[in-house]
Amino acid sequence: MIASFSIVPLDKGESVSEYVAICVSLVRDSGLPYQLTPMATVVEGELDEVMGLIARCHRTMRRHSRRVLTRVEIDDREGRDDALHQKVESVRARLQDM
Amino acid sequence: MIASFSIVPLDKGESVSEYVAICVSLVRDSGLPYQLTPMATVVEGELDEVMGLIARCHRTMRRHSRRVLTRVEIDDREGRDDALHQKVESVRARLQDM
Amino acid sequence: MIASFSIVPLDKGESVSEYVAICVSLVRDSGLPYQLTPMATVVEGELDEVMGLIARCHRTMRRHSRRVLTRVEIDDREGRDDALHQKVESVRARLQDM
Amino acid sequence: MIASFSIVPLDKGESVSEYVAICVSLVRDSGLPYQLTPMATVVEGELDEVMGLIARCHRTMRRHSRRVLTRVEIDDREGRDDALHQKVESVRARLQDM
Repeated sequence: MIASFSIVPLDKGESVSEYVAICVSLVRDSGLPYQLTPMATVVEGELDEVMGLIARCHRTMRRHSRRVLTRVEIDDREGRDDALHQKVESVRARLQDM
Repeated sequence: MIASFSIVPLDKGESVSEYVAICVSLVRDSGLPYQLTPMATVVEGELDEVMGLIARCHRTMRRHSRRVLTRVEIDDREGRDDALHQKVESVRARLQDM
Repeated sequence: MIASFSIVPLDKGESVSEYVAICVSLVRDSGLPYQLTPMATVVEGELDEVMGLIARCHRTMRRHSRRVLTRVEIDDREGRDDALHQKVESVRARLQDM
Repeated sequence: MIASFSIVPLDKGESVSEYVAICVSLVRDSGLPYQLTPMATVVEGELDEVMGLIARCHRTMRRHSRRVLTRVEIDDREGRDDALHQKVESVRARLQDM
């Protein structure tokens, strides 16, 4: 399955990339395939791995901040591997003919 | 912390309340305080309890469906108990003077 | 259709209910049916009315804040009026038999 | 500002890339800078342009489907142009030193 998530501290002012980077470094260290996008980090793995990773990121952010907003979207489809690339490719292929 | 979540099967057609009810029954059985809203179920508890419950709901939905979309939003604030009621009350109190 | 939305300023520190209330007062003044929930405001109306209202709330928040995060979820189903109440009732009715 | 959005029909079964492509073709034709990601399309523009485009995509999907779920996240920060690339670059730059 793939999951897209973002974790935002509310008490750090308008610039939060320093804190986002701490989370993304945890994602990188997890070894799971991931992609950085402008609004979220997308990661692919088993449900438990992905939920565990997001919980770890959330908890780490909470050690830095008194209030944290976390947003997760999961797309879990039977028999799909490499959905991280396949989903975009499948739309792109259709787009070329339109 | 509180979390709002919704879990939707993509292969069941436009009416999905039967499947939403299966998830909500798991929430009810969890014993955690919760609230049913038109777009999501909101639940209050510790991070692990809440993440575990949502993973259980997601897995149950996946047994019924070949593709499941799950959406979670977490609001985790230092020293807040009963945020399920407090957040709405705090806005309502301010509204009365506006 | 119904839409659930939340609008959060990033530069106001951990307590934001003062700003949330400004948005909810715009919702109240719109005359559209709405419901306050712990994680979002849910509103019912035509697409243009609802999108216009959310844009108005977002713009108002941006006058107060240098960075605003807005989240919207829309559920738009053919032939449904009063979805604000019907969706929850429909799940509740099924829950009673489980 | 940048916005990330996804529009999903509930009555088309598990495979929806055909319908996602219809939306993305509207995004492409809008002339706004955009990026396709595995879980959402990200677009950059003024609030009205972006909201108008998402409403157009939503309405188009509703002509094909009896029930449509649309999800939008907006990040609107004072004085930021090219946030579509800057946000990711800013995190990546920090990551290299971690």
